[in-house]
Amino acid sequence: MEAIVKRFKEQLEQLRVYDHAMGILYYDMETVMPKGAFALAGDTLGALSEVSYKLRTDETFVSDMQAILANPDQVDPITLCEAKRMNEDRERIACIPIEEYVAYQVESTAAFSAWQEAKAKNEFALFLPHLEKLIDYTRRFALYYKPDAPVYDTLLDEYEKGLTTEMLDGFFRDVRSALVPLIDRIRKNGYQPDTSFLEQRYPIEKQRELTKTLMQVMCMDPDHSTCGEVEHPFTTNFTKADVRITTHYYEDAVQSSMYSVIHEAGHATYELNVGDEIARSPLGTGVSMGVHESQSRFFENIIGRSEPFIEAVYPKLTELFPEQLKGVSAHAFYLAVNKAEPSLIRTEADELTYSLHIMVRYELEKQLIAGTLKAADLPKAWNAMYREYLGIDVPNDTMGVLQDSHWSGGSFGYFPSYAIGSAYGAQLLKRMERDLDVWGLAKAGNLAPIIAWLKERIYQYGCRLDPKELMEQAFEAPFDPNYYIEYLTEKFTELYRL
Amino acid sequence: MEAIVKRFKEQLEQLRVYDHAMGILYYDMETVMPKGAFALAGDTLGALSEVSYKLRTDETFVSDMQAILANPDQVDPITLCEAKRMNEDRERIACIPIEEYVAYQVESTAAFSAWQEAKAKNEFALFLPHLEKLIDYTRRFALYYKPDAPVYDTLLDEYEKGLTTEMLDGFFRDVRSALVPLIDRIRKNGYQPDTSFLEQRYPIEKQRELTKTLMQVMCMDPDHSTCGEVEHPFTTNFTKADVRITTHYYEDAVQSSMYSVIHEAGHATYELNVGDEIARSPLGTGVSMGVHESQSRFFENIIGRSEPFIEAVYPKLTELFPEQLKGVSAHAFYLAVNKAEPSLIRTEADELTYSLHIMVRYELEKQLIAGTLKAADLPKAWNAMYREYLGIDVPNDTMGVLQDSHWSGGSFGYFPSYAIGSAYGAQLLKRMERDLDVWGLAKAGNLAPIIAWLKERIYQYGCRLDPKELMEQAFEAPFDPNYYIEYLTEKFTELYRL
Repeated sequence: MEAIVKRFKEQLEQLRVYDHAMGILYYDMETVMPKGAFALAGDTLGALSEVSYKLRTDETFVSDMQAILANPDQVDPITLCEAKRMNEDRERIACIPIEEYVAYQVESTAAFSAWQEAKAKNEFALFLPHLEKLIDYTRRFALYYKPDAPVYDTLLDEYEKGLTTEMLDGFFRDVRSALVPLIDRIRKNGYQPDTSFLEQRYPIEKQRELTKTLMQVMCMDPDHSTCGEVEHPFTTNFTKADVRITTHYYEDAVQSSMYSVIHEAGHATYELNVGDEIARSPLGTGVSMGVHESQSRFFENIIGRSEPFIEAVYPKLTELFPEQLKGVSAHAFYLAVNKAEPSLIRTEADELTYSLHIMVRYELEKQLIAGTLKAADLPKAWNAMYREYLGIDVPNDTMGVLQDSHWSGGSFGYFPSYAIGSAYGAQLLKRMERDLDVWGLAKAGNLAPIIAWLKERIYQYGCRLDPKELMEQAFEAPFDPNYYIEYLTEKFTELYRL
Repeated sequence: MEAIVKRFKEQLEQLRVYDHAMGILYYDMETVMPKGAFALAGDTLGALSEVSYKLRTDETFVSDMQAILANPDQVDPITLCEAKRMNEDRERIACIPIEEYVAYQVESTAAFSAWQEAKAKNEFALFLPHLEKLIDYTRRFALYYKPDAPVYDTLLDEYEKGLTTEMLDGFFRDVRSALVPLIDRIRKNGYQPDTSFLEQRYPIEKQRELTKTLMQVMCMDPDHSTCGEVEHPFTTNFTKADVRITTHYYEDAVQSSMYSVIHEAGHATYELNVGDEIARSPLGTGVSMGVHESQSRFFENIIGRSEPFIEAVYPKLTELFPEQLKGVSAHAFYLAVNKAEPSLIRTEADELTYSLHIMVRYELEKQLIAGTLKAADLPKAWNAMYREYLGIDVPNDTMGVLQDSHWSGGSFGYFPSYAIGSAYGAQLLKRMERDLDVWGLAKAGNLAPIIAWLKERIYQYGCRLDPKELMEQAFEAPFDPNYYIEYLTEKFTELYRL
């Protein structure tokens, strides 16, 4: 068994090497690669993914895993868990013919590039053929894996193990029935905070300094983290040694990058704090997108858009932007960054109406994957649903169906993670408040104890526990979306004095 | 033979994939990777280089190459040349035991990181143990390859095929005996141009705009090129589809990045213009560092520091920096960026005294490799030689022996390429002037015909010709360093009215 474990670990290290190389290439494509090199990078990624596929489905590797799984008493718990995870991974991909697997990698690079161009030119037609191919691949791969399961459930399970359409339908129904009347009351109420000071010119050099401060407040170790500049912010990591957030600076919207940075820093904090004992293991990363988004949205909204936290960072804001924030109190800033109003762009949406953006995507994804909505009809369906759910007209596809990158990367079933994550966050807060003076800490800008609490309950485990098990352990209770509904209702009732 | 060629080409594509992945990782390390991840990247690079080594020395690959080389009439000239180059490459590495080859890759990553820290902290001792190891590896590898040749000649040959210590000794003797009296006459003359306007504050945002303009003037296609920001500028490329220059902006020295960008753009122009028929071939890149530096230094100095070129870009400079250049004529700017004076930093040195910086490094390298100078004694020897050759005192190691990155990457024998390249450039100019109105074009900011001329004679060939053959074909004559001496003498005699 010792020899088996040694060989198994060596193969895991080989896999890490290919993941690292491919991850850096993807990061490079998103940040600096000139677009004329995307085809070349696609070929390189295709070739590397072929090697990765072979390593992950290699006969000796599979028999080693099975030997480990068959003898749980003879190995340490980390190795056992690694074998379990790698076996799940193998089951998901080994059913896909290798040529299709590689062709998909190459196609998804081309699709990403086509989407970028389509968005820049406001021409959905440029992206359409790629979108069709990606939907086709996605559906095919899901059916290879689980021929008898509803395809969309298989996809959901990939991003948040255990999540189903049935559960989400109920979740979104509850959320919608609570939030739509609340949003209506705000609309009828007529009052909106002053946000004019946010629309001034905030020099990008100064915004970069703000990013540094926020990363410090989020306890991100500069030896192991960095912030890049991209069109669509994301976080990526190569083990916990190298965790990268990204942002996009808009000179006329300081809050955009500010909250994007806090959001991505929430993802990064999760990755930076997995246990050292699994630092280089495939277990040493966040377990699911739902849990990940729970962290990013917890820090972005629950902490970051709270009045105590804004009070903590406000001296830095006024130091960097004395002209722009002249005569603006921390309280006025707090009201402005919480202005709730249906809008066009998901990533810029306020905390209250955000879930409606997710619901639109959820409904459309389901139909695209079921085949009841053709990709060609997507822009029309998108616009109709924005009218129905958010009451607004979409002026063009760039600000509509082309706004997000997810589908261009073949990520169908990802979006619900944002809503589930938000709901996890609200329940975490309730539990956390029993142990910590959350708002006292936020007001002091001292997030370290909050991060330590989350590390203890969530981060350190990496992928060692399934999402459901992990979150129930953290909550000390089953998941209950009512915390989310209560949190939003309370916050916005008070904010808008309803 | 058809099957052999097909298999040979597939292996070349595999090699390209690994070169691409490793190259992007190196680029990432130099530009964005947090330093706490260097050890991880070192392991990844080690593992990838092991695969690359195996691909390059693989038995079937070797027998395919030999079959191609034995049947030159049965294959096209490009394939034949590829086999020749890959066989040379194999001869150079197959003699190195694979464990040592991989260990060297890992060590050179560690050395680079240690050098960065040593330079930042002005602590040569941090770098010393790594330097010792690198010298040891370098010497060992050279002796594996050519047990009976002088080690330093083997190294020179790697960067500029055919170059020898004997030839360089003569070259530097001639250059030195011509330039030292010239530099002396300038010193005694007493006159120096006004450079005070260069020492003002030039905002980095504006300098970034200048970079864009310079890249346009250098005809760099933005779909295939980009400019990154680093501590020590360099150029790298992944086929001709993705050619990257880098620069470093100093707010109080606009000419630093300006000439760095033109220098690196000279490298990039070479890579961007290799023939399309060898675009993805191992032949599709610059043939040697000497030829490469001939291009970078031709554009940086011969074109970029000429009065006609400065007249061409001066309207942009005054548009970007109206305050800083108020009352400063193009002629005054020309004089200022050509100020000749012994100085501390190679990359900031003027065209005239530059070769003295190279001579220092050349003499020290020879001794380090011969073992007549111990690495521990290098700072002392460096400082003594700066006194002797340039007449100046080195205040600390950061501005002395630690200033350049080359040795930290194991590049011993590289530095002479800069001087040889400068000399190539002067001879190219002479030949070019017979075909083109070089100065009329420079004055019009129209470098396209100059680049086309260089493409015709040099760039398109990539590695298809040896440096000597290539340059003699371009010169239509043997290499003659007197052109370089004459060029400098003429330019600086006129500049300083000697």
